[in-house]
Formats: sequence, structure tokens, C-alpha cells
Amino acid sequence: MSWTPDYPRTVPERRPPGHRPRAPRWTLGFDAPLSLVTSDYLALQCAGPDDPAVGPFLERVRACHTGRDGADAPEAWELLSFTDEAGRHNLVHLGYWRDATSHARWLATAPLPRWFAELDAAAVPFGAWHEVVQVPLDRVETIYSDPRRAFGLAACPGTRRESMTVNGYFGAARDRLPLSAIDPLEAAGPHRRRARPAASEGRRLRAECGHNTAVIRSGQYWQRAEGEQLADYTEALEPKLMAGMAHLREAADAEGTLSLRVMTSLDRETLRPLRETSVLGHFHTLAALEGWAAGHATHAAIYEHAIAKNRQYGEARTVVTWHEVFVLPRTAAFAYVNCHPATGILPYATSVLAVEPDGPAGDSPAAYGG
Amino acid sequence: MSWTPDYPRTVPERRPPGHRPRAPRWTLGFDAPLSLVTSDYLALQCAGPDDPAVGPFLERVRACHTGRDGADAPEAWELLSFTDEAGRHNLVHLGYWRDATSHARWLATAPLPRWFAELDAAAVPFGAWHEVVQVPLDRVETIYSDPRRAFGLAACPGTRRESMTVNGYFGAARDRLPLSAIDPLEAAGPHRRRARPAASEGRRLRAECGHNTAVIRSGQYWQRAEGEQLADYTEALEPKLMAGMAHLREAADAEGTLSLRVMTSLDRETLRPLRETSVLGHFHTLAALEGWAAGHATHAAIYEHAIAKNRQYGEARTVVTWHEVFVLPRTAAFAYVNCHPATGILPYATSVLAVEPDGPAGDSPAAYGG
Repeated sequence: MSWTPDYPRTVPERRPPGHRPRAPRWTLGFDAPLSLVTSDYLALQCAGPDDPAVGPFLERVRACHTGRDGADAPEAWELLSFTDEAGRHNLVHLGYWRDATSHARWLATAPLPRWFAELDAAAVPFGAWHEVVQVPLDRVETIYSDPRRAFGLAACPGTRRESMTVNGYFGAARDRLPLSAIDPLEAAGPHRRRARPAASEGRRLRAECGHNTAVIRSGQYWQRAEGEQLADYTEALEPKLMAGMAHLREAADAEGTLSLRVMTSLDRETLRPLRETSVLGHFHTLAALEGWAAGHATHAAIYEHAIAKNRQYGEARTVVTWHEVFVLPRTAAFAYVNCHPATGILPYATSVLAVEPDGPAGDSPAAYGG
Repeated sequence: MSWTPDYPRTVPERRPPGHRPRAPRWTLGFDAPLSLVTSDYLALQCAGPDDPAVGPFLERVRACHTGRDGADAPEAWELLSFTDEAGRHNLVHLGYWRDATSHARWLATAPLPRWFAELDAAAVPFGAWHEVVQVPLDRVETIYSDPRRAFGLAACPGTRRESMTVNGYFGAARDRLPLSAIDPLEAAGPHRRRARPAASEGRRLRAECGHNTAVIRSGQYWQRAEGEQLADYTEALEPKLMAGMAHLREAADAEGTLSLRVMTSLDRETLRPLRETSVLGHFHTLAALEGWAAGHATHAAIYEHAIAKNRQYGEARTVVTWHEVFVLPRTAAFAYVNCHPATGILPYATSVLAVEPDGPAGDSPAAYGG
């Protein structure tokens, strides 16, 4: 039996009576109890893969995972990249921890977060950002279309993919969030684009998103797909997925999108792109994400296609989809150094604070890095 | 049966085998499950009770608890005051919430936090500070020497004081913290005073304390004490308590004290001081607090005196002592506007950020108030 937070329900579940899912799905279980779960995105924003800033960034990444500096390293980690709205190349180190104290020590001592904390925003010829997503486990839910490979948080030790039936209906993601049993997970205020963009270049900004912001990492893996299944992914499912993502970005004001990045997974040694992507999306609330999923044709197209192919190929299906959702409490703050003003949550942040160049007391401006 | 988070234990409990407490004690139970608990300290720092800033501050306090602005008001609230190390008068509005979303709405809309968010640090002739203590319930523990009156968090509806036996030994406070069953609650780094004080006057600062900072509110109530018991409190117990608090403040570097304020409760209507005090202390870790309690003569003097009087008077005891402890996760950030540099956690903060006068995007510098 795996461990999971559990509340006696006071908010009705969404699952229709007698529901039986059309496709098998799995969710993440933990071997031992834990409290706070952390995913930590720390990224370089630069001109392209050949930018001179890439080498030093990767050196610090490697130093985080070797030797004495490897203590408190993430239990699972990945390298990803994407080109953003402004045409900038973003190279992302993503780490996962089941122990928040280990993550706090990593922030205070590891080469990569120390480097980020000490960047002089006015002097660096590149941008960098750091988004720490840390929530109690009752604010996490996961789903995998295939249990055989460990994606995202599932790559942490002490976890397992377990068969479930809380899937295949609108509201299933909410039902999988333990906290939803006692909390409607509402926002404190409306979704609103900032009146004018933050002046972000040459500066270090600290941006906050609102209470109950929903962060989804939604993954697609077709590294092992061949022939018909490969063609189906690249010619049918991927275009449908990208149409949906384009809609969420273009209709961000209406859909409650704060930020949306389509990231490509990289081989950690060669940096070669893998046939694996994941969409990192920040939404005003879980309800915003649900609204799109329940109501928009772009989601229906993705969903129906994925389900049909699952049924067609069964266990022989080589395209795997999955996601992990984290619903943030109020204090989530992200940091941006010399980034362009459309970076991350900057356009929709509930507050953006500028951090003074050398800090008010002469030490590094963000001693704990985030 | 009340609801409480519960983990299968992986860290041994401190309770000695067969322990039976010398005195009865009570702890807080909740009628229904909840996730995040919030206590919110928002204070004016000024010359004295007659400072012209006091009236407008109190007007906003009252507006938070009446009419349409009373929606999302704290479920329990108090007014307290104290004179700090710099001789400044601090007038504190303290609120408690069981619902973090309600608290987030309060921050976004209520007169008091809106006033704080909009203060111009360079122009105001007074100081103000705002410390939001919000933690998962697994990071909270409470104890009361008498169950008949509701103190602090216990004044929230849907709670009750329950008899317990997890008391009367070193480590009992830790054992009462549900998370301690699976987490040693360590800090990420050493306790360290900042190299030089933050330049705080005329500025808005955002200060962070480290992961697993322990916040204690320790209360004393003798409003109903008369004759012998009143004399014993004012002549014996109170001086012992104040000697202990003086030690924790004077030996802050060694004891792990980040901040320590002895607050007096005020009548909410007349503002007259009550015979009720509480010590708000911030400590580097729970272990720091435990070290003082287990090892220092000043704590032994307080503890033995309180226990002896409890045994002497039993249910007729009119002096009540209690405390509530919150162990903070990493992201706790407090805000200080035009305060003196020894205010709150400023001398020991792991990071202090200066917020620019008008914010980087032309809106209020801390739109969500904290």
C-alpha cells in the first residue's frame, strides 16, 4: 500500500456514479509518508544553443550532480529547452525533491542556485530565471497513460505508478487532488494581465502568482515509437496538441493562462533533443484548466485522438502521455534576472518586486535563491 | 473525535516509555479537516499610543471587521501592543484563519492590508510591518494549562481544547507536531546575524527567514487572578518569565533567537491593557527553542514555578499559560515599511530585499500585501 494524504470529503466528488474509465491509467504512489513536494526550474535565457553563456551554465549543472556538491542534489533531474515568445532560447534544469529541507540546503549551497543568486542583473549578457514549485502533497495529482517509464516526479526513488480508476471524466484531475475533498481551490481575485509590462531587462525581479495558481507539466513521450505509431504522433496527435497550446497562449486572458512553455527534453550527456516534450503551464486556477479541457474543441481533439490510439494499440502503444499538477499556496514567488518582459508569469503576476542591484545589506540579493 | 494530520512514524518519539505527565494539559483539536492554518500579524510602529498614526490605523482595523469589508475577516482576532528594543510603540492586529483562500481574499481586498500595501515607505512618518505565518497543519502544535478559555488560534470556530498526555517531558512540543513523526525539522544552514544591519528607514523591505524557522506565541493570562494568586503571578512568575525572555534576547546569537517580542493584549474597544501577555518568538529551529527549554536555568525556573502552582491550586488556578508553535516552510517572507533596523527578523533574515518605491510596473509594490 502506498501512502497518500486523505481527507473525509466535504466537497462532492465530480466522478459520475458508476463511472468506469474507457482507458487504463496510472497515478503516482509513495512508499513512505512525506509532506512537501518540490519541483525546481532554474533556467538560462539566451540567444541560442551556441550562446557563450550555455557552457558555464552546464558546468554548474554538472557540478550540482557530482562530488561533494552532489549532496542534497535533486532526487530526479532533467535538462530541457524551448524557444519562447520573444525568440529566446531557454535551457532549463529541472529537479525534484521529496524532502524540502534537502532542497533548502541545495538552494543555500549548490553551484547552480548560488550562481543564480549572485548574478548581477545589470551586467550579465543573458537572462536567467528560477521558479520553485513547492506544495504540500495534498496539492499534487498525477496521471500516466503507461506505467513502464518514470516521468517527472515519478523518477524520484520511493515512488511507484499504481493503477487507478479516477480518470476519464471531467473533473477527474480535481478528484485526484486530495485537498479538493475539502477545498474548492478558488483564487483570491480575478485573472488579470498587468496594466503595463514589468521593466525586466537589466533587473532582478521577484514575481508572485496568486493563491491556488495551478501549475501543470503535461508530457508526451514518443522516443520508442516507430512506423505507423510514429507517423500518427508527428502527423496527427502532435499538431492537435500544438493547436491546443497555441489557443491557450493566444486566448490567455480568457482561458486564465499565466504562462505556457512547450519544452523539449534533452539527452543529459549530449544535449541532443529527445522525442519527448512537456508543456509547462501556469493557470489562474484549476477551474481555468478544467474549463478549457471540458469546453474547447482543441482539447476534445487531443483527448479523443489519444484515447482512440490507446484503445487501438493497447499495451503495444509506444506513445506515452502523462501529467503532474501542483496547486500553489499563496507565497509562491519566482525570480527573473535580466529576462524579457513576457518571461514566465511576469505578464500576469499578482505582484512584481524589483530587487535592488546589491541588496540593502550588502549581501547577495536573494541569499536563498528563489 | 477531532481531526488531525497523522503520519506513520519514522522518526522516534521523544516521550519516555511509561511517561505520565505531572499536570493535566490540553491541546487544540479541529472539528473538520483543514490544510493550511494562518496567523497574520499586521502592525503599526510609531512613537507611542498617542501618535497621530494610531487613529487611522485603528479605523482600518475596525473597517476590517464591519459591514461588507468584514467578509473574509479573520475568524479570530486580537489587538496587542509592545514597546520594542528601539523604544518604539508597536500596535499589532493579529488575525487567525482556518481557510487560506479566505485569508488570500482578505489580503487582496480588506482595508488594513490594502493600506499596508499602498504605504509609501519614503513618505510615511511612522513604520509598519506585516508578518504572515501560514503553514500546513502538520507544522502546528498547541498546549493550554486550562481548557476553559480560548486563546490565539483556539478562538477560531470549529475548534476545541482536548485533554492530552503528550506533555511534561523534554521533546513533548516536538512530539505534538505531526510532521515531526517523519521529519527532523532541521534548518538549511547555520543561525547567523547579518553582517551589517539592513538599511530599513524610508524603505519597504521583504525579509525571508530560513526553512523550518520556529515561531512560538507563548501566552500568560491572569485577568481573573486575585489575592494570593495575583501576587504570585506579578511577584514571582512574571519576573521569572521576563528573566528568561531577556536571556533569549541578549543571547540571541547563541540561543538561535531571530526575534522576540513581549506583547500585551488590549481590550478591543477601549484599548486598555489587559492582564494578559504573549511572547512572540522566532527561532532558527525548533531545536533552538528546545535547547533553551532543556538546558537553561531561566526556563527551569519558569517551568517549575508554573507546575508547582498548578498542583497547589488545581482547578482553582486562575493564572493560565499556553502556547502555539508554527514551523515555517521556506517561502515565509515578511514585509517592513520604514521600520528601524532591529525590527522583527531583519537582523537575522536569510535574505532581505528592498522593494522599489513605486514598483517596477507602476502598481502597488506588494499587491497581495505580504
